[in-house]
Amino acid sequence: MIERLAILGVGLIGGSLALSLKQQGLVKQVVGYGRSKANLAEALALGIIDEAVESASEAARNADMVVMAVPIASMRGLLAEIQPVLSATAVLTDVGSAKSCWIEDVLSVWQGVWPENAVPAHPIAGAEKSGAAAAMADLYVGRKVVITPHEQTGASALAKVTQMWQATGADVRCMSAEEHDQTFAWTSHLPHLLSFALVDMFSQRQDVERLFDYTAGGFRDFTRIAASDPTMWRDIVALNAPAIAEALSDYQQQLQTYANLLEQQDWQGLSDAFARAKATRDALLPTESR
Amino acid sequence: MIERLAILGVGLIGGSLALSLKQQGLVKQVVGYGRSKANLAEALALGIIDEAVESASEAARNADMVVMAVPIASMRGLLAEIQPVLSATAVLTDVGSAKSCWIEDVLSVWQGVWPENAVPAHPIAGAEKSGAAAAMADLYVGRKVVITPHEQTGASALAKVTQMWQATGADVRCMSAEEHDQTFAWTSHLPHLLSFALVDMFSQRQDVERLFDYTAGGFRDFTRIAASDPTMWRDIVALNAPAIAEALSDYQQQLQTYANLLEQQDWQGLSDAFARAKATRDALLPTESR
Repeated sequence: MIERLAILGVGLIGGSLALSLKQQGLVKQVVGYGRSKANLAEALALGIIDEAVESASEAARNADMVVMAVPIASMRGLLAEIQPVLSATAVLTDVGSAKSCWIEDVLSVWQGVWPENAVPAHPIAGAEKSGAAAAMADLYVGRKVVITPHEQTGASALAKVTQMWQATGADVRCMSAEEHDQTFAWTSHLPHLLSFALVDMFSQRQDVERLFDYTAGGFRDFTRIAASDPTMWRDIVALNAPAIAEALSDYQQQLQTYANLLEQQDWQGLSDAFARAKATRDALLPTESR
Repeated sequence: MIERLAILGVGLIGGSLALSLKQQGLVKQVVGYGRSKANLAEALALGIIDEAVESASEAARNADMVVMAVPIASMRGLLAEIQPVLSATAVLTDVGSAKSCWIEDVLSVWQGVWPENAVPAHPIAGAEKSGAAAAMADLYVGRKVVITPHEQTGASALAKVTQMWQATGADVRCMSAEEHDQTFAWTSHLPHLLSFALVDMFSQRQDVERLFDYTAGGFRDFTRIAASDPTMWRDIVALNAPAIAEALSDYQQQLQTYANLLEQQDWQGLSDAFARAKATRDALLPTESR
């Protein structure tokens, strides 16, 4: 049971967590902080939080669980605000899409000594909609949550965060922050970059409207992630830059291989490449959960 | 009214056209030819065709409308088969995803003299499912069909093909074959190549299963088109290679620009690029018809 849950950033991710825990009676009181007063008022009206406060430190004070669900570039500033008021027994966790950077932020604020109750975590859940109004109690059912404990993270705090996410219906996994950041550079950050790049290239053409007029479902799906929030993605790329640069470089080599096949008119080679891709996707993503 | 419609290749595309025209009473008799006897039997059982025949020439003989809905690499061989039996008044059209190649095929078989009743066309409709069983009478409602007349195509044949597709509910457009092939190199062929390339790259990694385990909805959408038929896409790339090579080269330059932004840690530049992409997509693909 969580006595007082502080949600810093009551959007889709933080709000859905609060709703899920409340629905199951696993939290007594939820206090929310966020930059937008209108969003906080909505969270209050929707029963996502019980109390809205005007500062992160007010939210974190007396909380036994603090969940940081703000953009990853805002983490360090908020950590510095709450560090002085955080109780020694409070568990501190986050939901950021890149993990090494949060660890660096915490270490920076705690002057190099990792607090044993700090637990880096990343729920893998869509962010097409945002704000408290988009929150859903069942958002995490069947979704993965990756926890990347620091070596100084204590077993008790790790267990509390694990149990909290499992209670939402999530499939909780553990790995190192480095492994997390490399994995998601490939599976999420690179595809976003590639999708942005295609639409960005279209946008710089004079015939962009005409081109879009002749797009169909395949293009729509391929570029759906290019409608993601540019600032959020700039931050993710900036804060996981080395892993993403490596994945991008590998992909550039892959494209050069295809360009060579085209130039050499090696249609068998191209057909083999396409068949390899299709076989892999069919085997590993067998059902279309669209 | 079409007296005898010959469908060469009774799959999703050809079958759906036949179903739609039959449903509206715009065709008296549909004769089908295809390589798979099982598929032809199914088309017959489903009422998509009225008669199944064993050769393309048998189907085309006495037909007043011949629709070639076979893979684009099979067009030239079939054209050579039907050319001797085609009536002088029969309209000949196709559904291929690349158009200059079909024009070359026709000119090659007709020894350089374009037959005035030949009308190159391309219905823009999904091909996730295939075979006669996937055919739907309403497949083309609201979809675009691009007709790319040869300069020797006659007005009467052009009107008949235009009316046939308009009757299915399609939005019929005209442009040159060259313009078509360049447009679709950008809006369809390049995205397919990029999606195949990403999954192909994953497939060659030892940790491919683990990577797929950590993919989410964004990756699934981005790579949906990598589950397309490899042979069909090899043929499209081979038969529209110059336009695709040019689009690919432009995209490679775009990626190099992004790689440079990453290396220079130019996060403002990256954020501007992402914002440009999002604004373009939001403006030009405003509703998600998923």
